[in-house]
Amino acid sequence: MTTLQSFDARTGQPLGAALLASSAADIDAAVRAADAAFADWQSSEGTARAALLNALAAALESDREALVALADQESGLGLPRLNGELDRTAFQLRRFAGLAQQGAAFAFTDDPAVAGGPPAGHPAMQRVRVPLGPVAMFSASNFPFAFSVLGGDTASALAAGCSVVVKAHPGHPHTSQRVFGLVQAALKSLNLPAGLVAMVQGAGHEVGVSLVQHPLIAAGAFTGSTRGGAALQAAARQRARPIPFYGELGSINPVVATPQALASGGEALAQTLAGSITLGCGQFCTNPGLLVFQRSEASSAFVAQLVTALQVQQPHVMLTQGMRQALDKGTQAQLAAGAKALLHEPVAALQPRPFLAEVDAATFIAQPDLHEEVFGPASLIVWTDSVAQTLQVLQAVGGSLTVTLWGLNDDTPENRALVRGASAIAGRLLFTGVPTGVAVTAAQQHGGPWPSSTEPMSTSVGDTALDRFLRPVSLQDMPAWLAARHGQPC
Amino acid sequence: MTTLQSFDARTGQPLGAALLASSAADIDAAVRAADAAFADWQSSEGTARAALLNALAAALESDREALVALADQESGLGLPRLNGELDRTAFQLRRFAGLAQQGAAFAFTDDPAVAGGPPAGHPAMQRVRVPLGPVAMFSASNFPFAFSVLGGDTASALAAGCSVVVKAHPGHPHTSQRVFGLVQAALKSLNLPAGLVAMVQGAGHEVGVSLVQHPLIAAGAFTGSTRGGAALQAAARQRARPIPFYGELGSINPVVATPQALASGGEALAQTLAGSITLGCGQFCTNPGLLVFQRSEASSAFVAQLVTALQVQQPHVMLTQGMRQALDKGTQAQLAAGAKALLHEPVAALQPRPFLAEVDAATFIAQPDLHEEVFGPASLIVWTDSVAQTLQVLQAVGGSLTVTLWGLNDDTPENRALVRGASAIAGRLLFTGVPTGVAVTAAQQHGGPWPSSTEPMSTSVGDTALDRFLRPVSLQDMPAWLAARHGQPC
Repeated sequence: MTTLQSFDARTGQPLGAALLASSAADIDAAVRAADAAFADWQSSEGTARAALLNALAAALESDREALVALADQESGLGLPRLNGELDRTAFQLRRFAGLAQQGAAFAFTDDPAVAGGPPAGHPAMQRVRVPLGPVAMFSASNFPFAFSVLGGDTASALAAGCSVVVKAHPGHPHTSQRVFGLVQAALKSLNLPAGLVAMVQGAGHEVGVSLVQHPLIAAGAFTGSTRGGAALQAAARQRARPIPFYGELGSINPVVATPQALASGGEALAQTLAGSITLGCGQFCTNPGLLVFQRSEASSAFVAQLVTALQVQQPHVMLTQGMRQALDKGTQAQLAAGAKALLHEPVAALQPRPFLAEVDAATFIAQPDLHEEVFGPASLIVWTDSVAQTLQVLQAVGGSLTVTLWGLNDDTPENRALVRGASAIAGRLLFTGVPTGVAVTAAQQHGGPWPSSTEPMSTSVGDTALDRFLRPVSLQDMPAWLAARHGQPC
Repeated sequence: MTTLQSFDARTGQPLGAALLASSAADIDAAVRAADAAFADWQSSEGTARAALLNALAAALESDREALVALADQESGLGLPRLNGELDRTAFQLRRFAGLAQQGAAFAFTDDPAVAGGPPAGHPAMQRVRVPLGPVAMFSASNFPFAFSVLGGDTASALAAGCSVVVKAHPGHPHTSQRVFGLVQAALKSLNLPAGLVAMVQGAGHEVGVSLVQHPLIAAGAFTGSTRGGAALQAAARQRARPIPFYGELGSINPVVATPQALASGGEALAQTLAGSITLGCGQFCTNPGLLVFQRSEASSAFVAQLVTALQVQQPHVMLTQGMRQALDKGTQAQLAAGAKALLHEPVAALQPRPFLAEVDAATFIAQPDLHEEVFGPASLIVWTDSVAQTLQVLQAVGGSLTVTLWGLNDDTPENRALVRGASAIAGRLLFTGVPTGVAVTAAQQHGGPWPSSTEPMSTSVGDTALDRFLRPVSLQDMPAWLAARHGQPC
């Protein structure tokens, strides 16, 4: 039997007893239970979905103290952040409850018959959406609540009428188990089948691949590394019947700034940026890993302020020892590829020091190694000579969750070109502030071109995350009984 | 130099001189021209897009007689059908002109700032959509107008603000060239760059693969065979930067009927169905290739009527000699896999005879060969013993553009189960009539689970075909000048 060991993030010591990884039979049983639960859940009313989602939010809050303490041990993210993350997770569950209640999943396009022959004449049509089926949901390491068992993927899938099989993240197995216990209690209290939210676990890739390839799984949702996501995406595609796979992968989130913006922002802006680079020890998918600055005295002065601001930052431990080692490898790869260190204080501790390096645009564009995400409190400055070169740098990045554009105050051809160039590679553009912090709201777009996500037409955060799990179906000349149900055969 | 020869569909004789297939340099030049044209077209206003689309519709109509005669020679589809198809194509161009004029591509979600910290508080957000870039558009053999140079993919891509590189179909190269000449004249008269709609051609797979793998191509749109579509999809995925690939591939379009529906429909219904099976020599993606009937006296009587109705049908020639040969191979494969012929009159002519066979549900479910599309005037009856078995048959089909459900007049558990089972595998359900005929309208969904399409969340026909070429981008705290333009940096 393969086992799964949790570790205390701060000490690196084993935490609790080893857990059993899910066997092939466990995975099959979980998926079959989710499929059985889907049979009724797909036809559930919005009020029933809202009741479950609200109950799950309340359950999280009711166990807050114990959950946060446990997650803190396993992740080292600290109590303030984890309390905030739990709030966010409950907020998100309630937001999808509201959407379910309002009937978001049941929206339809009514298209009455038009008399006469084609092309203008046509039969009565109605376009509805049907839930896909059981969703394989892969938890992320860096958000033990908000992108884990009860995170946005689970909330949006349940609101859409899908059941969920969670693949727990091996970085926080005890937190996952505890949240899963709350889920089971909530399902029971609402007389819903236990399989509506099932869970499997394992440290290696086998459990995930088996899950996404199970014939009854209808979609995958993933937040994590580019390598892990690409492997699961390939597995989803290799099925006899391919399924949608929504992966939110690596992103380096360029911050582009005019010299004027850096000059007027000054020390306060440098501190804000340093805070964003080191927030949560840099373990955010929207961490600003690339700073694209145009050469100027003002820019150089800002960089000096940024180095000072970073030096006083004290990042906490990283989530796992593996990630800590990957950070050192990543920063070393940048230096080997031609970047020059501005702040580099190698330490052997689990707590890393902030890292800052610089490189010229031509070298950056020519070196694919410099386009790789370095997960942790690290950022790379790329020096450009012109807006045209800045645009070339963005094009070399290729795909990113965000691009931040500071100083685009006026309607100029150059600013328009920057907006277009940034839009071409990212899902979210920010014109002030820092990219860390992703609002759970109607207009959010968390997903951009490869490698930042596998399905850039969709988002994993915000209201339209629901759309990922609903497939359009047109009903032509439907009978009266089905029309009375607005095309929902429940 | 590789060449490309057109053939007269009725005689099989060469038609006109051989054409040159596009070289690697030709393909590169076409894509570069489309990319250069995209730079401005992405920021064009709805009125400009509408003007072009309306001009293209008028251009088709102005050259109707010559176009239809040429397409008839190359395809053998007949003048009435081709005149109707030209009408449909012009209608579709004008419909997307109307959508462009109404600003469909510029719709946005406005999400004003909410004061306070997260999770409830958030910055001002606006979700807009940006055109993807130059689209590689692969024409189909079976619709020389409606799914070719100026078909729905081109119309929707232009309306979305994308440029297009057409891969002409080798089955009707002269028709494609003539339409392309009209396009070029229309672009010139509107002072638009010639590269806005570029074209390449070739008989083999190389041209298509090179096109979809060109680094400046941003999306693919394809209508054709499962094998061809799968190869191009794989090529799109193997790029350093994968792109969306919208393929509409093979579909067997089950028609499910209750014994009561067959009894009451009788001879008239048998004739309608026979007409649908043989329409256009069965060369429709929505051709009813599978008839799922429950064993009963009424069903047997209907099948006898269907055989009679099919016997008097005189399908015209098939599009190409290759397709004619594939039809014989397909029907023979069905017989080899356990189906029994009810109507099978082998002929060596380019004009095939209708084919009808039958098989029991258990054999159908067990034999993947019977789930393959047979392109042509052929259909396979699957006999079931119960609604439960009918549902198993649908599940074995897996993915289809349509499912037709006759006789679901009442709200019963069995009928609800049939609607759900059909929704699970198809993009369009019909409750009366036959699946051939796909209305160009607001609520159309032409695309279902694999193998019927590669992206079943999207449609290749109807208003929402536009959505395939627009990617969501959130604008956070955008400056006043950009907000005044509703987030469009044109």
